[in-house]
Amino acid sequence: MPELTLTFLGTGTSMGVPVIGCECRVCTSSDSRDRRTRSSIFARTPECAWVVDTGPDFRAQCLREGIGALDAAVFTHSHTDHVAGFDDLRPLCPFPKGLPIHASPSTMRDLRRMFGFAFEGKNQFPGYLRPIPSEFTGPFFLGKTELVPLSLRHGRADVNGFLFVRDGVKLAAYLSDCNEVPPEVIEQISGVRALIIDALRHRPHPTHFTVAEALEISRQVGPLETWFTHLCHELPHAETSANLPAGVRLAYDGLKLEL
Amino acid sequence: MPELTLTFLGTGTSMGVPVIGCECRVCTSSDSRDRRTRSSIFARTPECAWVVDTGPDFRAQCLREGIGALDAAVFTHSHTDHVAGFDDLRPLCPFPKGLPIHASPSTMRDLRRMFGFAFEGKNQFPGYLRPIPSEFTGPFFLGKTELVPLSLRHGRADVNGFLFVRDGVKLAAYLSDCNEVPPEVIEQISGVRALIIDALRHRPHPTHFTVAEALEISRQVGPLETWFTHLCHELPHAETSANLPAGVRLAYDGLKLEL
Repeated sequence: MPELTLTFLGTGTSMGVPVIGCECRVCTSSDSRDRRTRSSIFARTPECAWVVDTGPDFRAQCLREGIGALDAAVFTHSHTDHVAGFDDLRPLCPFPKGLPIHASPSTMRDLRRMFGFAFEGKNQFPGYLRPIPSEFTGPFFLGKTELVPLSLRHGRADVNGFLFVRDGVKLAAYLSDCNEVPPEVIEQISGVRALIIDALRHRPHPTHFTVAEALEISRQVGPLETWFTHLCHELPHAETSANLPAGVRLAYDGLKLEL
Repeated sequence: MPELTLTFLGTGTSMGVPVIGCECRVCTSSDSRDRRTRSSIFARTPECAWVVDTGPDFRAQCLREGIGALDAAVFTHSHTDHVAGFDDLRPLCPFPKGLPIHASPSTMRDLRRMFGFAFEGKNQFPGYLRPIPSEFTGPFFLGKTELVPLSLRHGRADVNGFLFVRDGVKLAAYLSDCNEVPPEVIEQISGVRALIIDALRHRPHPTHFTVAEALEISRQVGPLETWFTHLCHELPHAETSANLPAGVRLAYDGLKLEL
């Protein structure tokens, strides 16, 4: 059994692919890898499992991947496309102990504002979500995996990526939403086995990396493999993949990495 | 062309059907009518179109039904299963004029709390949602259709149903979330052509009607046809339908009513 299995629950940008009402060649593509729900990743280790982010597609993603249990939920930031499915953690919430929610203090503040009914704990009914807030300000463990929060710039927002380390080995770094990776983070994730990074499209964007910018970060980090995520409808899977250098690939919904 | 076409975007309860992790006979049913996304309805008239509620499945529902344009969004209440897809109104938002959002003052307050980034209007980018808040305190018109807000009890929450009237004809009443319909509302919707009403399951629930309770309301209202919605995984479509009286049926995702 691999130490860490990562499943891409979603690899799309905030509007997903297809975009509602759009008739471009990617939005009408018959390649299933061109159907992208909102970005999220599911991590399974021999001793526990967690999800990073719960966008609006979270329930559909769990059904698609047969996810029926979770030990924690971890959040990168509070933008709607990463948190709107928060209440769909309900059927995955252990009763009565509740589900640990790991987020930065500012992301937790936003989760409390948006989903106050869950945090207030007024509903003690078995069917309701009982979040156990756990604000991180540094590395923390889920089972034997160390999660190292990484501070990234995402336009005007400060967001988190995560480095997953087991037995001192940097297995994966998940940087789903960013347009800047500070030098100290490059250093932290240097030599990671799998780099998963935002690569929205080719045209510049004020809050996301382009493909060229993500390639440059990959070059600086020097991972064994690089996977692009948070992809918009300007990147057809097959054609974009064919033009990437060795070791760099586009992720797609349902892709599993065994690390 | 019918005066009013209603499409059930979703007919499920807050957790949808299948429920994540559930292996009951409805959650594992092969009958497509047993797959229920979160309750919402799409209304089209010769002159305009609107949606009632935008749950977490809203984007998937629009893609399924080929919805590419909207003139307004209307809300029954602010529970997560009815609003989590709010930001997915983005690709349906006319630019630059924005999209009228019709909600009661208390529901609008919650929408502003949850989706402040949209209401603040800081993002003038064409791709962002620009809601035009319109708080109702009485009947209002969308095109030639009069929408009469109905005050309902939904556990401890006050929520709205809506009566759709054209040329003085009560075409439909949509009461998706309730466990009490006040006598004055019964009177208002009396004789409506199509009554669409919450019928969660057979067992009692603190905030939703049971099938028997919904049947009793239907008897009091006297509609031409009654459709049950907001259905949980305890109601198999075929078997439940077979036991309903004439004129009363279970709705299902994708069902269209031409009124």
